Parts: sequence; C-alpha cells; structure tokens
Amino acid sequence: MSERAGAAELERFSLNHATTKRWPLDEAVAGCVEAGVPGIGLWREEVAAFGLSRAAKLVRDAGLRVTSLCRGGFFDAEGWFDDNRRAIEGAATLGAPVLVLVSGGLPAGSRDLDGAREHVADAIGALVPYASDAGVTLGVEALHPMYCSDRCVIATLGQALDIAERFPAAAVGVVVDTYHLWWDDQVWSQIDRAGRSGRIASFQVADWITPLPEGVLLGRGLPGEGCVELRRFREAVDAAGYTGPIEVEVFHADVWARPGAEVLAAAIDGYLSNVV
Amino acid sequence: MSERAGAAELERFSLNHATTKRWPLDEAVAGCVEAGVPGIGLWREEVAAFGLSRAAKLVRDAGLRVTSLCRGGFFDAEGWFDDNRRAIEGAATLGAPVLVLVSGGLPAGSRDLDGAREHVADAIGALVPYASDAGVTLGVEALHPMYCSDRCVIATLGQALDIAERFPAAAVGVVVDTYHLWWDDQVWSQIDRAGRSGRIASFQVADWITPLPEGVLLGRGLPGEGCVELRRFREAVDAAGYTGPIEVEVFHADVWARPGAEVLAAAIDGYLSNVV
Repeated sequence: MSERAGAAELERFSLNHATTKRWPLDEAVAGCVEAGVPGIGLWREEVAAFGLSRAAKLVRDAGLRVTSLCRGGFFDAEGWFDDNRRAIEGAATLGAPVLVLVSGGLPAGSRDLDGAREHVADAIGALVPYASDAGVTLGVEALHPMYCSDRCVIATLGQALDIAERFPAAAVGVVVDTYHLWWDDQVWSQIDRAGRSGRIASFQVADWITPLPEGVLLGRGLPGEGCVELRRFREAVDAAGYTGPIEVEVFHADVWARPGAEVLAAAIDGYLSNVV
Repeated sequence: MSERAGAAELERFSLNHATTKRWPLDEAVAGCVEAGVPGIGLWREEVAAFGLSRAAKLVRDAGLRVTSLCRGGFFDAEGWFDDNRRAIEGAATLGAPVLVLVSGGLPAGSRDLDGAREHVADAIGALVPYASDAGVTLGVEALHPMYCSDRCVIATLGQALDIAERFPAAAVGVVVDTYHLWWDDQVWSQIDRAGRSGRIASFQVADWITPLPEGVLLGRGLPGEGCVELRRFREAVDAAGYTGPIEVEVFHADVWARPGAEVLAAAIDGYLSNVV
C-alpha cells in the first residue's frame, strides 16, 4: 500500500460506496476524509437506511463531494415513474450532480428488445422535466451486454448516446464505465462523440477479470487487477473534454469481505498506478 | 415432442454435435438419420477420437451433410498455425464447407486488445492460401463480449466482417450465431452487409437464458427457451441471401445430461416453433 497520497493526486478520485458495500456509510465517509479522498458516490439503499437528510448532512459536514447517486432506472419495473422522481429528489438533496440510470431488462417473457429500448427513451423523456427542475443530470449507463436481458437493455455507449441526445445535455448525459465498455471497438469514437456534446456525466472505473462468477454480478476487479486499458479510457475522456470525478466502482464478493479502509487504500493504489 | 417432422421442414436443419456432447458420434449420426435430420456440425475433438477418415466415412455412408467443423482459431495459443492447417485439412476430409474460427483471447497479462485483433487478421491472412487450396471457407465467429478477454477478442459481427472483407469471400466468411449477437442493435445492418458480400458462411442458433452459470460457458438455451428473436434472425439472414443450413448449437450442462435423441427431438421442436 502507498503512503497517504497527496491532495493533488486524488483531486478527481471518488470512492463509489458499492466498492466497500459493507462499510457503514458514516465510517466510509470518515475513511474517505482520513485518506484524503475528496468525493464519494452514494447508493440509494444505503442512504435510505441512514436517512436521506442525515446522509446529506454527514457528507456536507465532512466536506466530501457527492459525485453521483446510484441508481435510478429499471423502467421495466412497476412504479418506475414515482421511484425515479424520488431518486431525482434524493440526488438533489445530497448535492449529487448525476443520477445514474440502469435501464432495466426485458419485461418477463418478452423478446421485444427494440420495444424495450424505445420504452427507456420514453421513460427518460418523462423524467427530464423533473431532473431539469432539480438541477440533476440523468446519466444513462450502458451495461455490459451480458446484462442485456435482465438488467439493462442499453448495451453500448453508442446506444446510451442515441437516447441522451434526444434531450438537452444538462438534463441527460451518459456514464462511461470501463467495466461495461472495454470490449467495444467503437467506444473510443463514442467517447469522443459524448465529449463533443458535453454528455459525459460520470466516469467510473473497474477492471475486467475472469472467470466470471455465477450470475456475473460480483466479478469486477480493482483497477490494475485485470485487462482493461484504464489509462487509455481516462486519457480518452480527458481528450473529450471531461474534467469531472473518477469513481472507482468495484463489485466483488472478495473485495466486500475485506475491511473498508483496506479496500479504499487498494483502490487508491490501483488508481494512481493504472488510471491517472 | 412432435411427431417426426417432414423432410421439407427439416431441409436446412443441422444438429451441431456439441448440443449433444455426450452422444457418441456414431450414435449421433444414426440418431440424425432416424430423425430425418440431413446435416450435422462436427467438432474436431470428437472427430479425432473417432478417427478422421472413419468419421468422414461414417457421415458419408449415412448420407449426412457435414455443415461445419468446429473449431479453428485460438490464435493466442502456441502452435496456432500448424493446428489451423490441420483443422483446414480435417474440414476438407469431412466435406465440411466451413471451418469455424474462434479467435482466442488476450495473451496472458496483455491489455493490448487492438493488437490482439490485428494479430487475428494477420493469422487469418496466413491461413487463407491453405483454406483456398482446400476449398474450405474460414468462418470468423464473433463471440459474445463476455468472452472477449479469454476466448475471443472478436466481439461483434461488424468486427468479424471488418476482418473477413480483407480477403476473398470464398476464403473467409462470418458465422452468425444468435447467442453471441442478439444484444447488438447493429446486428441487423451487419447481417445485411454480410449477405450483400456473400460472407454468411454459417448460421447457428441458440437461445439466451439467465442466470448465467459460473464461467458462463454452459448457459445456453434450446431454441424457444429464452429471449432471442430467433425467427427475426432467420428472416434477416434469408433476406440477406443466405440459403444454407441452420445449426442448432447449445451448450448447457443440463442439456448434456439428457439422452441425445431426446435433446435432438427438443431441438427440432424448438427449431420448428421458433426459427423457421
């Protein structure tokens, strides 16, 4: 592990709280402050358990920037409209500039992928006025195609942009997540496209490792553990004009089993060695 | 299960032997004849175990058409050149018009995805003279992006075509496999592109089901069990001018555990109900 990094080195670093899922929110916030980390990405479930206004006060008092709120979306679920309006309000309360949207998969028994994708665009359109009023950008995230049927019908950055570009850039952007996009030979031109229209709302970093676990949800690597050209991604979003935070967001059962502070230190190490 | 289907209904049907992996080759061939199936897709390991010339005689005497031989490729492995030359000779001996190529993944420890893809194109170029001499088409198969790091750096039909189009269409085509391509919104235009240049060397059918098993290799569904628009794929390859066989190729531990004849009957049922 490295010694505590300098403030300049970590200027853009943000810990997505899901990386240390079992680290209670107040301890994670204190741990970020202790490590010199200026930003944190929050999750609605953990925020709700802690209390929304209490969580907002916690991070504000700690001087942390909330870099994103995960997640809205899941437009295949009943009640998606009200749930997403609440998520937008939550993001505004926390001072999160971006609400990350994971679109949801195919409705049960459906094979209509085109229809599901069109529904996502319509649903986002219905949310745009509320996001604009709240000053929150909706960040459309493309998930890896292995999640296409059951979690996210938006499978490439190009598709995410096709939807985002129907709306004002302040209202709808895209999330660039290395874990989901690294395999795509078109991702570099799509990052450029996203940057030119000011659509990169969030940049998230995780590495790709195999073998994938059953269900393929908890198999991500910390930066540097896998085969993704992470620095190339960071340079690409920079070249496209992105100057915002860089969230490390890793889901892995083994990572979750480790103490939060240790994982944060490893995430910082991986970030400094492989991303910036 | 349906009664035995008519010859016209099964005219294009082919059983990829991997669907009934534990069905010994001679029994699988007899089972195909018994079921009125005119074609079979073979695998090199099973053919080698049976004996190449013996296998060639077996299928010829049975009046079966060998629709493809799996697999060549794995250009990240030592000895790929000699191995692929042997695979081409094997395809010619068996009368298989197509050798299916799975490119292989990233070399151990490498993050150079562009370089790996360029190596695939170079490797195929080195094999083209041998394939042309043997009258065998090399079928470049894009595998699902979840295999990109460790099995196949070619992740979309567009990429497969980018490589195939460097060479004569008789020497290098592409494999359209529904399991690997169904999530891609560009697949329909790429099928059209492939058809226009006479590049569809093989059409393989399997369905997408979740949850994915550990390692994600043995999680395919029989036609109709999942969410893929199989008939739309068949109509798309037809509209693009493809008139060749339609192989059912399903890898699933539960499917492999069932008797071969039962699986073949289920594959035929799924094919008749969901593909043609």
